[in-house]
Amino acid sequence: MNVLVLNCGSSSLKFQVIESDLDLIERDADRTLASGVIERIGSEALITVRAPGAPVLKRAEPLRDHRAALEYAIGLFRSGDVRIEEASSIADVHAIGHRIVHGGEKLTKSIIIDSSVVEQIEDCIELAPLHNPANLKGIAAAKAIFGDSVPHVAVFDTAFHATMPATSFLYALPYQLYVRHRVRRYGFHGTSHRYVAYRYRQLTGKSREETNIVTVHLGNGCSICAIRGGESLDTSMGMTPVEGLVMGTRSGDLDASILPFLHHKEGMQVDELDGMLNKRSGLLGISGLTNDMRDLLEEERANQDRRAGLAVDIFCQRVRKYIGAYLAIMNGADALVFTGGIGENSDEIRRRICADMGFLGISLDEKLNSATVGRLEGEVSGSGCRVRIFVIPTNEELLIARDTVRCVRDAPRRW
Amino acid sequence: MNVLVLNCGSSSLKFQVIESDLDLIERDADRTLASGVIERIGSEALITVRAPGAPVLKRAEPLRDHRAALEYAIGLFRSGDVRIEEASSIADVHAIGHRIVHGGEKLTKSIIIDSSVVEQIEDCIELAPLHNPANLKGIAAAKAIFGDSVPHVAVFDTAFHATMPATSFLYALPYQLYVRHRVRRYGFHGTSHRYVAYRYRQLTGKSREETNIVTVHLGNGCSICAIRGGESLDTSMGMTPVEGLVMGTRSGDLDASILPFLHHKEGMQVDELDGMLNKRSGLLGISGLTNDMRDLLEEERANQDRRAGLAVDIFCQRVRKYIGAYLAIMNGADALVFTGGIGENSDEIRRRICADMGFLGISLDEKLNSATVGRLEGEVSGSGCRVRIFVIPTNEELLIARDTVRCVRDAPRRW
Repeated sequence: MNVLVLNCGSSSLKFQVIESDLDLIERDADRTLASGVIERIGSEALITVRAPGAPVLKRAEPLRDHRAALEYAIGLFRSGDVRIEEASSIADVHAIGHRIVHGGEKLTKSIIIDSSVVEQIEDCIELAPLHNPANLKGIAAAKAIFGDSVPHVAVFDTAFHATMPATSFLYALPYQLYVRHRVRRYGFHGTSHRYVAYRYRQLTGKSREETNIVTVHLGNGCSICAIRGGESLDTSMGMTPVEGLVMGTRSGDLDASILPFLHHKEGMQVDELDGMLNKRSGLLGISGLTNDMRDLLEEERANQDRRAGLAVDIFCQRVRKYIGAYLAIMNGADALVFTGGIGENSDEIRRRICADMGFLGISLDEKLNSATVGRLEGEVSGSGCRVRIFVIPTNEELLIARDTVRCVRDAPRRW
Repeated sequence: MNVLVLNCGSSSLKFQVIESDLDLIERDADRTLASGVIERIGSEALITVRAPGAPVLKRAEPLRDHRAALEYAIGLFRSGDVRIEEASSIADVHAIGHRIVHGGEKLTKSIIIDSSVVEQIEDCIELAPLHNPANLKGIAAAKAIFGDSVPHVAVFDTAFHATMPATSFLYALPYQLYVRHRVRRYGFHGTSHRYVAYRYRQLTGKSREETNIVTVHLGNGCSICAIRGGESLDTSMGMTPVEGLVMGTRSGDLDASILPFLHHKEGMQVDELDGMLNKRSGLLGISGLTNDMRDLLEEERANQDRRAGLAVDIFCQRVRKYIGAYLAIMNGADALVFTGGIGENSDEIRRRICADMGFLGISLDEKLNSATVGRLEGEVSGSGCRVRIFVIPTNEELLIARDTVRCVRDAPRRW
């Protein structure tokens, strides 16, 4: 079946059409037929569509909302604007998988979307005020266009972490805040951590129960996950995606009392402070230059920019700390898996993270590490290390498509 | 010489009179002549004074400020109310060592207090609004009573951590906040971490440069320190004492975006939120019962109280994570040192922290561990562990006295 995978931001829409089915999943033979991004929805939108064997299509078009954007995207295939053989069949969508950021404590598995599920996603808006409303727009747009005859499935970024024990998810805050408002760690990037854990299993022949690894997702957002017995034991993002590792523009961990301090010192209001943590911190905040790791590494190399180097060092040091922390609570792990844009492509960042970690049994093979970039998959461990190291490109869309198929076919969807 | 060591809180004054000198330090023969606590200064104050060989003296007396409290304490010795042989000589104070919480970026060594030092301590008030003003009251009271003929020395909680590199002390926030307001990690409990590192050297015969250890101070406040080459490389408390480990009433690490969430959800103002993080969180917050670890362990054991057990588990898990994190950035350590009220006395907490840490080379000897309580000092490592484990009772007052002697005698005061 053709599964349309939708990932909606506040003014953007990413989609893929993936041909998948239980049999194709079994044979690992499902494939992406087309993918696209529509940005700046609400004004003059930019549309980019890719399909294997076809030239990249770029358009600019005024699109006032997510529904208009999705209609336009589907229209491109129906009209034959995307000149590939299968164009018309791509427009023939059999199921839709929606990436939903926050499922709260109740939505802990991928699920067919009915009105009750929509209500529960709405209930989680206060936990993800930036993300869930956009995700809901995607559901509304897709339902308006395809109706209920096509099944819609929700796949949650938080779901994989639902297995965390209270010792991982509870903050040391007044317990009533958890009871009243569900203040706790949820974790995000679950689909990515779950996908690379699945690929790790395939590469090593391990069972789910034998899967004891630390997955390190380093992209514009960054998180790390301790996976024990195949399940998320702990993860670095918290109630929101602000906590944990240093990210492109997010701070990750900091002393929370800095917020009251800045409120008094700079007169910053609570929402400004939150905006600062999300949009002006991280690599951008330290360097004052950019949130792009590639540019920082270049500034450091070519111009010896001190703050660019510092941003990279702090980024790596934070990852190192979390690796150590998770190896402690897991009493060791079989492997470390790098994924995400930086994790997949920057051999230098992987090298700096894994440097001088011999005590923990971590060492890279320099040659393998340098060679494994550009969405290549493979092991990059040095000889004799106790914790193997893998690079595994993530594919959240594929996992969303597969969960969609499994929901529609009522098959188990643990992986 | 007799050194009066003063530790002033907002309505409390702790003091010790310690006989010390360079020669006594060399022979490790300096000794406490008397110690006392005065609480509830400003109303009907409670005075408790202890001296070796004398019965504990307890009094209640209206004392309106720190000066009155200190005068009263000195008077007890002068008047002979504390009935010991040396009472009158105790009142003969030759130098005063002041515990100062925050020295900021400039006051990084113990120093004789002149008007410029007082100004610099005042400059740090905004970084420690609860502590530095009380410490300054202690200086003013002591100067009023003893005058400038007696030298006054400031010993800072932050000083030991001044060696942290930028990768440890800088947050991933807009860099301007560091430039403008010195927003950074300072760390606290420095005198304690430094003292136990010094004792570790004595116990093992290691040089300062060979001292690669993780010191774990668990009291009502808790912090952990990575000491490499004898210097603080990283520590868990941050710009304020809120960050890091779970404490009696402080939260330690949490997702900072929880503050904006609670502001919107509960209408809590910034100062209320800060108060909550400092006074209603930690062990007290999770358990809803108490901030006292002994009571929590008893509730868990005797009544199987779920939340008491959870508070203890989360407390231990946080320590485990930091141990792993510091072993990662240090590429291993020679020893783990437990100190502080909980660290020195709770063999159970030490056991739960060190359980299932074999991968990191950490294991306790059950018998030694159980036996090393009640301010006993010793090694409690299991056989064959890569990271030795010690219990070393802290003695911040002794180190303050010694630094005071060294400052007065113009001797090196690195340890």
